[in-house]
Amino acid sequence: MKNSFGNNIQVTLFGESHGEAIGVVIDGLAAGLALDLDHVQKRMAQRQAKGRISTQRHEPDAIRIVSGWFEGHTTGTPLTILIENTNTRSKDYERTRYRLRPSHADYTAFAKYDGFQDFRGGGHFSGRLTAPIVAAGAIAQQLLEQNGVFIGSHILRCHSESDHPFATDEPTLKEQILRLNDLDFPVLDEESAGRIHAVMEAAANDGDSVGGIIETAVVGLPAGIGEPFFDSIESVLSHLLFSVPAVKGVQFGLGFDFASYYGSQVNDAFCVQDGQIRTVTNHNGGINGGISNGMPIRFQCVIKPTASIFKEQDTVDYQTKEPVRLQIQGRHDPAILHRARVVIDSVTALGLLDLCCTNQAYQGMKKGECQ
Amino acid sequence: MKNSFGNNIQVTLFGESHGEAIGVVIDGLAAGLALDLDHVQKRMAQRQAKGRISTQRHEPDAIRIVSGWFEGHTTGTPLTILIENTNTRSKDYERTRYRLRPSHADYTAFAKYDGFQDFRGGGHFSGRLTAPIVAAGAIAQQLLEQNGVFIGSHILRCHSESDHPFATDEPTLKEQILRLNDLDFPVLDEESAGRIHAVMEAAANDGDSVGGIIETAVVGLPAGIGEPFFDSIESVLSHLLFSVPAVKGVQFGLGFDFASYYGSQVNDAFCVQDGQIRTVTNHNGGINGGISNGMPIRFQCVIKPTASIFKEQDTVDYQTKEPVRLQIQGRHDPAILHRARVVIDSVTALGLLDLCCTNQAYQGMKKGECQ
Amino acid sequence: MKNSFGNNIQVTLFGESHGEAIGVVIDGLAAGLALDLDHVQKRMAQRQAKGRISTQRHEPDAIRIVSGWFEGHTTGTPLTILIENTNTRSKDYERTRYRLRPSHADYTAFAKYDGFQDFRGGGHFSGRLTAPIVAAGAIAQQLLEQNGVFIGSHILRCHSESDHPFATDEPTLKEQILRLNDLDFPVLDEESAGRIHAVMEAAANDGDSVGGIIETAVVGLPAGIGEPFFDSIESVLSHLLFSVPAVKGVQFGLGFDFASYYGSQVNDAFCVQDGQIRTVTNHNGGINGGISNGMPIRFQCVIKPTASIFKEQDTVDYQTKEPVRLQIQGRHDPAILHRARVVIDSVTALGLLDLCCTNQAYQGMKKGECQ
Amino acid sequence: MKNSFGNNIQVTLFGESHGEAIGVVIDGLAAGLALDLDHVQKRMAQRQAKGRISTQRHEPDAIRIVSGWFEGHTTGTPLTILIENTNTRSKDYERTRYRLRPSHADYTAFAKYDGFQDFRGGGHFSGRLTAPIVAAGAIAQQLLEQNGVFIGSHILRCHSESDHPFATDEPTLKEQILRLNDLDFPVLDEESAGRIHAVMEAAANDGDSVGGIIETAVVGLPAGIGEPFFDSIESVLSHLLFSVPAVKGVQFGLGFDFASYYGSQVNDAFCVQDGQIRTVTNHNGGINGGISNGMPIRFQCVIKPTASIFKEQDTVDYQTKEPVRLQIQGRHDPAILHRARVVIDSVTALGLLDLCCTNQAYQGMKKGECQ
Repeated sequence: MKNSFGNNIQVTLFGESHGEAIGVVIDGLAAGLALDLDHVQKRMAQRQAKGRISTQRHEPDAIRIVSGWFEGHTTGTPLTILIENTNTRSKDYERTRYRLRPSHADYTAFAKYDGFQDFRGGGHFSGRLTAPIVAAGAIAQQLLEQNGVFIGSHILRCHSESDHPFATDEPTLKEQILRLNDLDFPVLDEESAGRIHAVMEAAANDGDSVGGIIETAVVGLPAGIGEPFFDSIESVLSHLLFSVPAVKGVQFGLGFDFASYYGSQVNDAFCVQDGQIRTVTNHNGGINGGISNGMPIRFQCVIKPTASIFKEQDTVDYQTKEPVRLQIQGRHDPAILHRARVVIDSVTALGLLDLCCTNQAYQGMKKGECQ
Repeated sequence: MKNSFGNNIQVTLFGESHGEAIGVVIDGLAAGLALDLDHVQKRMAQRQAKGRISTQRHEPDAIRIVSGWFEGHTTGTPLTILIENTNTRSKDYERTRYRLRPSHADYTAFAKYDGFQDFRGGGHFSGRLTAPIVAAGAIAQQLLEQNGVFIGSHILRCHSESDHPFATDEPTLKEQILRLNDLDFPVLDEESAGRIHAVMEAAANDGDSVGGIIETAVVGLPAGIGEPFFDSIESVLSHLLFSVPAVKGVQFGLGFDFASYYGSQVNDAFCVQDGQIRTVTNHNGGINGGISNGMPIRFQCVIKPTASIFKEQDTVDYQTKEPVRLQIQGRHDPAILHRARVVIDSVTALGLLDLCCTNQAYQGMKKGECQ
Repeated sequence: MKNSFGNNIQVTLFGESHGEAIGVVIDGLAAGLALDLDHVQKRMAQRQAKGRISTQRHEPDAIRIVSGWFEGHTTGTPLTILIENTNTRSKDYERTRYRLRPSHADYTAFAKYDGFQDFRGGGHFSGRLTAPIVAAGAIAQQLLEQNGVFIGSHILRCHSESDHPFATDEPTLKEQILRLNDLDFPVLDEESAGRIHAVMEAAANDGDSVGGIIETAVVGLPAGIGEPFFDSIESVLSHLLFSVPAVKGVQFGLGFDFASYYGSQVNDAFCVQDGQIRTVTNHNGGINGGISNGMPIRFQCVIKPTASIFKEQDTVDYQTKEPVRLQIQGRHDPAILHRARVVIDSVTALGLLDLCCTNQAYQGMKKGECQ
Repeated sequence: MKNSFGNNIQVTLFGESHGEAIGVVIDGLAAGLALDLDHVQKRMAQRQAKGRISTQRHEPDAIRIVSGWFEGHTTGTPLTILIENTNTRSKDYERTRYRLRPSHADYTAFAKYDGFQDFRGGGHFSGRLTAPIVAAGAIAQQLLEQNGVFIGSHILRCHSESDHPFATDEPTLKEQILRLNDLDFPVLDEESAGRIHAVMEAAANDGDSVGGIIETAVVGLPAGIGEPFFDSIESVLSHLLFSVPAVKGVQFGLGFDFASYYGSQVNDAFCVQDGQIRTVTNHNGGINGGISNGMPIRFQCVIKPTASIFKEQDTVDYQTKEPVRLQIQGRHDPAILHRARVVIDSVTALGLLDLCCTNQAYQGMKKGECQ
């Protein structure tokens, strides 16, 4: 439903980049949850722009909870988070209102909204809309962690540079996840971090931009989560992931590499470990038939290079329908990988929390406890 | 919502591989639509197994419309399609009921349904459930075609062999799509078809299986379709695509290749062609900000190698929790790429038709015609 | 969503009165539920027509479960029930296809479906569509009973005759409910039953019809069920109740009588009984702020007189737009109160079961058991 | 879904009576709608408390639109309205936190939210939550009026006093509706207004409260709106109406009076008027089979007497589980009928607008215009 998502935990997103405020309503949270709001704010900061490789638009992004929160706990009714837009420089956009920025949503917004869209800073299409997503996602992530489920992401690749992949054994993986969640520049290998940072800076210096791949892992999700046919874990997560601006591909487990193998090479044999059924390998990324199998969930997203570059580009003026040259002004990110991973963690948390709650909805029915 | 999908055109799927019948309810179709049921049946046949490279389970898959159809037109109320299961050999499965087939949903079904799942032939997880999807999708595809929207898919890659990619110019692309929809083995280049078929046969002979990549294109979709934030075209299509068994990755436009480029290399410049705003390149696969831009929609799905192979595998007996060797019996597909493309076309049609109807829901409001 | 209802237990209804089959898909049932299918069939029989005061269309209404049921238990995937239409006499309707039957949905169906509706026997608007509702509702009712929740209804009033109202003390009320569920003609007081039956017969003899009021009670529903703001118990139940053909009014507790009292007369004071918080009176019908308070749920529905009467009536021919006289033929019910109560019990069960499951969805979240 | 409602026009409600702010997100509005915000504010004022017969809590209830509004038009993305809570006197409630106010949601909130609810002023259950409903509803009403659909309500009855019923001829009815929308005390007959006001004042003087019946009419809704089976007009409107605090009964057309008539007396015969098919009478309130028939929609809601009275009452202390006497303090309404009618108009507008948009979703499909 357009700007709402979720069956039992529903988030509703609103706002435009240069409007008065952006925000999110989270409905379905149980009453009496004690949340760490400082941690939410810390995640907001990780999403925020920093340094040479990020936009110079800096805002506190202070979250303001206006409902659903009382005496340090959730109330059980909708929790609403507002983030005021304070540092807007809309004039940067007035001049080029009708000049369609290539690979942005400018033209499609015209096609859909007939020119009534709030064009300033990309309006509702702005990456800024991911701020309330992160606020909601940080809360979901806390609740999952209280249930033993941990989510983390790193920059696996940026242009020509790569990080180490995630570990395959679960204890190491969990350590990596916890460490990543404290890093502002989320790369597993320190040396890789330097090289990736350098690629981003080079792009920035050149007025250009770079993309890359984010790898995400989830540990602690029990077997049995996910709802076939249509609400497979892959379906729900990809739905949310592709909502994140700039994501153009999602793959689980081996993903597109599956195309090159024989079944006998990539089937995940079952084994018993400490009395638990596990798989020897995890090519399927922890998901069989759309349902978690107790192994770590693993997936990757590709983030395309930021569409805003400072190089001059060919485009069209929407009003005159004439070709024009466009030189984008304003404050932009040469790379958003380090910022996007918080958003990816966040939508992952929202999707999994909703699936966990949905799974729970019918469990009591057969025990005579459906109340 | 589990087995239902769609906001204005909703499909509800039901059935198990060896149950009495499988089927689908389609709600939201306008009254008075004349459908070509022979064409629906033809699409069912394309999804069906054929020859050496497919399962030997053959069923007519005759569709029976039990509601919503009267005097050769839709009635406007739910259209329900039943497909009886006629050729079931459930005994193949009894013997191995508790032997978890690697990379199948056997274990996750136990985890979720506590042993009450209909295990025969994979039950609700069977690829057979895609038959009603195709029936519904064929109807959606007809309606889109009446509105000038055409969808087609081909096997871009299978193991080590590749087909030509789709053409980039739209008239050629449309021709390719129309031709593919008539082919049983959907490959653009005839020579590639032979090589791909040979790879599949080799796997079959070896008791093994292969996967690959399906490439899909849509022409004729007008600009302005898709609903940010959460119901982007990518979100809605990927949600449906990942519901299809064996799909483990989805990418739009350049997809994962975006990771290797600079923004200046892959931004799609706008131009004017015959008075229409178009893009010079189409790296974004026809979608900006989650909304169609009038260029062809292009995406790829990876299909993992069929999990059912005839080679002996290591696994676990769910009851005894002991390791066992498993030799799968029964009738299975060494490759499903040629069958899966009909399913991919079908869910694509269902997703796009729903988004078209949703887009239409609010258009009359401002003209004083919201009735 | 048109023909689907429910968030965690979703029913999808399909079929037309004279089509091939009618049916329902129930999604969200837990796996492993043992259902008493004979009891479901018994409820179907109670809904069925009988004797002089009911239609002469008699069908076995045998339910056929085609999915979601295996080895005597639910499988956890969609349970689909089919009921074949066997005893249709469509010719009764051909002759009067364009003659709009007063107070039927004939004209509104033309307005909505442009003449493509299946007009035979009222098509999708037929009371016959309540048969699959009863099949689904009987299942929901069994599950609620296994959880200690009991639902029953009786004919409180029919034209000029009345039954005793339900008892106010809970043990007696529960006894009444259990007794009613075994009666074909659901009236609490035997003498009233005779008088009500006589009123119906008199109407039948006169080629006329009568309506009345059904009173429903639910015991055993724990406090805390219902989801403000929009999914109050009253909202969810009234939504379903008004879907039942012929229901034109719904009132909870004192209902419309509240208009005549002072607050001091009708507020329900709290008290403590056996350590439980209860209310001294129950004018609010067990619901405060949309949520159950642990007292019996009580509500009434008015059923308008059956629209099909055998007296000649003024109407219009839709094709010619000319006034015509109409003499309805066919098989019709002079009263449907005794049949409707099973339908009312059924939708009540479906609504409450869904709310119970929704309530359960988020309860584990705070205990670290959200899985 | 709890605090969201609507398929194509979705409202999401949030806030608590004494929290920071209350508000609503409206998703699905077309872009480019010019709204009269002064009129929205006027409707807010009509909902506001005034004079001796209303609470003394006075707040400007100034609406603040924080998203979806740009240069005097809707943007097509979510429109969010905030109303800050400024005049809260929470101390009135601290003292009686555990004293369950009879017929309020205090106890059910404890049962559902385990004491974590924001109890101040009723929290999320407060009538104050109807303020954002009115803001959203006023917008929906404007859009319907631009499409020729007009909604109005009056106090039909209050305790022992009654107003004239609505006129039966449509031109007079439309005049009445337009006049009512300008009145602060919505009664058709001036003399009745005086008597009804006097009843309310008498209750106020006595520290007591009164309820009554609101009658609502809609003119201009074309035939064909409403979605069987589950989304009948009656179902959708009653769902919303029963969400409004204090509504305990809803009836359409003759409503509960249907119980006393023969079918031959209350069937609405069809006739032709100015080339249009109409009904001679309108006992069904403009709805047949859940779909509008082009006649005025007519329904009534009963509003129970305000639960807050100043007379001492028996109740229970939730903490001690001991009986206590309760003397409610604070600022309360002895009657809310005159305020509630704006809320009833508002939810009616939201429900009908959503149904109109849903109806439009599939209309273009058959003309090859589904875009």
